[in-house]
Amino acid sequence: MESPPHATASASADEMPSIWKEQHAQDAPRGFVPPMGPGEVAAVESLLGYEFGDKALVEEALTHGSFYYPYRPGVTYERLEYLGDAVLTCVVSRAVFLTYGQLQPGPLTRLRAANVDKEKLARVAVVHGLHHFLRHKAPNLDGQITDFIEELSMYPIHSNGLLDPPKVLCDVVESLIGAIYCDSNFNQEIVWQVFQKLADPLISLETLGKHPVSELFEFCQKTHRGVKIVKDEWDKNLTVEVLIDGEMVGRATYAQKKEIAQNRAAKAALDKLKETLGQSQTEPMSGEVSEQFNKMDLAGSF
Amino acid sequence: MESPPHATASASADEMPSIWKEQHAQDAPRGFVPPMGPGEVAAVESLLGYEFGDKALVEEALTHGSFYYPYRPGVTYERLEYLGDAVLTCVVSRAVFLTYGQLQPGPLTRLRAANVDKEKLARVAVVHGLHHFLRHKAPNLDGQITDFIEELSMYPIHSNGLLDPPKVLCDVVESLIGAIYCDSNFNQEIVWQVFQKLADPLISLETLGKHPVSELFEFCQKTHRGVKIVKDEWDKNLTVEVLIDGEMVGRATYAQKKEIAQNRAAKAALDKLKETLGQSQTEPMSGEVSEQFNKMDLAGSF
Repeated sequence: MESPPHATASASADEMPSIWKEQHAQDAPRGFVPPMGPGEVAAVESLLGYEFGDKALVEEALTHGSFYYPYRPGVTYERLEYLGDAVLTCVVSRAVFLTYGQLQPGPLTRLRAANVDKEKLARVAVVHGLHHFLRHKAPNLDGQITDFIEELSMYPIHSNGLLDPPKVLCDVVESLIGAIYCDSNFNQEIVWQVFQKLADPLISLETLGKHPVSELFEFCQKTHRGVKIVKDEWDKNLTVEVLIDGEMVGRATYAQKKEIAQNRAAKAALDKLKETLGQSQTEPMSGEVSEQFNKMDLAGSF
Repeated sequence: MESPPHATASASADEMPSIWKEQHAQDAPRGFVPPMGPGEVAAVESLLGYEFGDKALVEEALTHGSFYYPYRPGVTYERLEYLGDAVLTCVVSRAVFLTYGQLQPGPLTRLRAANVDKEKLARVAVVHGLHHFLRHKAPNLDGQITDFIEELSMYPIHSNGLLDPPKVLCDVVESLIGAIYCDSNFNQEIVWQVFQKLADPLISLETLGKHPVSELFEFCQKTHRGVKIVKDEWDKNLTVEVLIDGEMVGRATYAQKKEIAQNRAAKAALDKLKETLGQSQTEPMSGEVSEQFNKMDLAGSF
C-alpha cells in the first residue's frame, strides 16, 4: 500500500522511545514533571532579554514531549512552536520588505527563509545557550546536539544545506518566541526586538549564500557543462557523487540524510571546480569561466 | 541535465506572453499604465471595509505584471503579496491558537492552512468581486477565472483539493492584505478585522474536511483493504484511477493538473464506497465499516 501523500510526521514524537509511544501514549495518566526553578526561569529571561509576566510560559516553551516519560505527555512546547513560527515569519518578512524596498519576491523570500530556517534558529539556540534549559528525556538528543555544536565550528557562517541541526534546537527558539508573543499580548514589535538581538547578525542580501546544488547547476548551465548528481547508491554506501561531463569531481558521505550528502557532494564539486579554474587562470577559456563565477553572487542574479 | 531542485518558478510570470518575456524583459523601458480612477479605488475600499491613507497601494495590490505588456513591468502586486501572505498566516495562526486552547499542532496547522490556502482565498476574491478590479493583460486569465467560478457552484464548501483555482485570485487577496498591513503602519489587529469579515465563515474544526486521498488511505488501512492510485497513464489519457483490492472503484479526468485528477479520483472512490456500504447496511461487516467512516471525523482522529 502506498503511503498517503498528506500524512504528517512529528519529528519530536519520533525522538521519543518507541516503547513509550506504544505502551503509554493512549491510556497512561498524565505524568508529574518537576517545575522549572525561579533561578532557571530568570536565566532564560536574561538570555532572551525579556521578562515574562506569566513564568509558566517559559516552562511550557522548554518542555519536550519526552520529558513526561514514561507517562502520557502533558503540556509541551509544540503549540507555542506553531505560534512562534508564524509570528517570526511575519516580523522577519516585514523587516526584509522594509530593508529592501525594491527587491523582488524571489530574493525577498530567500532572505526571509534563511533568517528563520532550521540552521539559523539552531545557531541562535546554541550561541545563546538556550539548549541548556531544554527539558527532555529523549535518548540520543544530547549527543546529537553535541555533534551539531562540533560541526558548527567547521561552518562559522550559514552553510546553506551542509549542516543537519537537530530539529529541537530550532523548535525551542520558535516556542520561546511564541511564548513572548503570548505573554506580550501578541505584540509583534516586542517579538521583533527580542529576535533581532538573538539573531544578530541577521543574514542580509550581501551575506546570503547560495544553495550548493543550485549554484552547481547554474554554473554548469552557464558554462555548458553536463552535470549529474548520482544518489542511487546512497542506500548502500551512504555516498553521493557529482559527475561533470561524465567525470567524478565531488563526493560526500553522510549517513543520516541523503539530502545532506547530496549538498556536501555539490559543495565538494564546486570547490574542486574553483580550485581547478584558479590554477589555470591564464588560459582564456578559464578566465571566461571564472567571470561566470564572479557574476553569480545572488544580488546580481535577480 | 537534471533541473536544480531549488529553482523557483513564478506563476505570474508564466502567465505572461512568452514573446514579451523574451524580447522585453531585460531592456525595454518601463511602461506607462493608466492609474486606477478614484471611483475604482473607493469601490475596492468599500469591498474590503478599509479606507486607505495611501491610495497608490490599492493600485499596486491589483496590478499584475502582465498589465505592463508590451513593456518591462513596473511595480506589481508581488511584493505586497509576499508581505500579505506572512501577516495573514500570523493572524490566522493566532486566531486558531486562541479559539482552540487545547488543540495539538497537527490540527492547528491544518486549520490554519485551510483558512489561507489557494482555494479559500480564491473564494474570498470571487465572493466579494475583487477579481473585477484586477489589472492584467494575461491572455486566458479571464477565461480561467470564469471557469473557476462555474466550478465553484459544484463545490459550495471548501473542496479540499478538488478545485484548481487560478493562483492570481489567491495572490490578489494576499496583496490587498499586504497593502492594508503597510497602510495601517503594520497593525495586525486591523488586518485581522478586515480578513475576518472577508473570509466569513472561517473554516472551523467542525467544518474542516479531509483531503480525499488521506481519507481514502485511512479508510482502507482501517478496513484492511489494499488501495492503489494509478497515475502512470495520466500523461496519455489525463485520467487517474483508484483500485481497491485490485478493482477499479473510482476514476477522474482532469487535463491541467495530475494532482487534481488524483484527488477527484479518490473522491469518486470514496463516494462509491459509501454508496456501496450504504446499500448493504444490514450486513454485519458493512455495519462495522460504516462505523469506521463515522469515527473518521477530523476532531476525533488527533
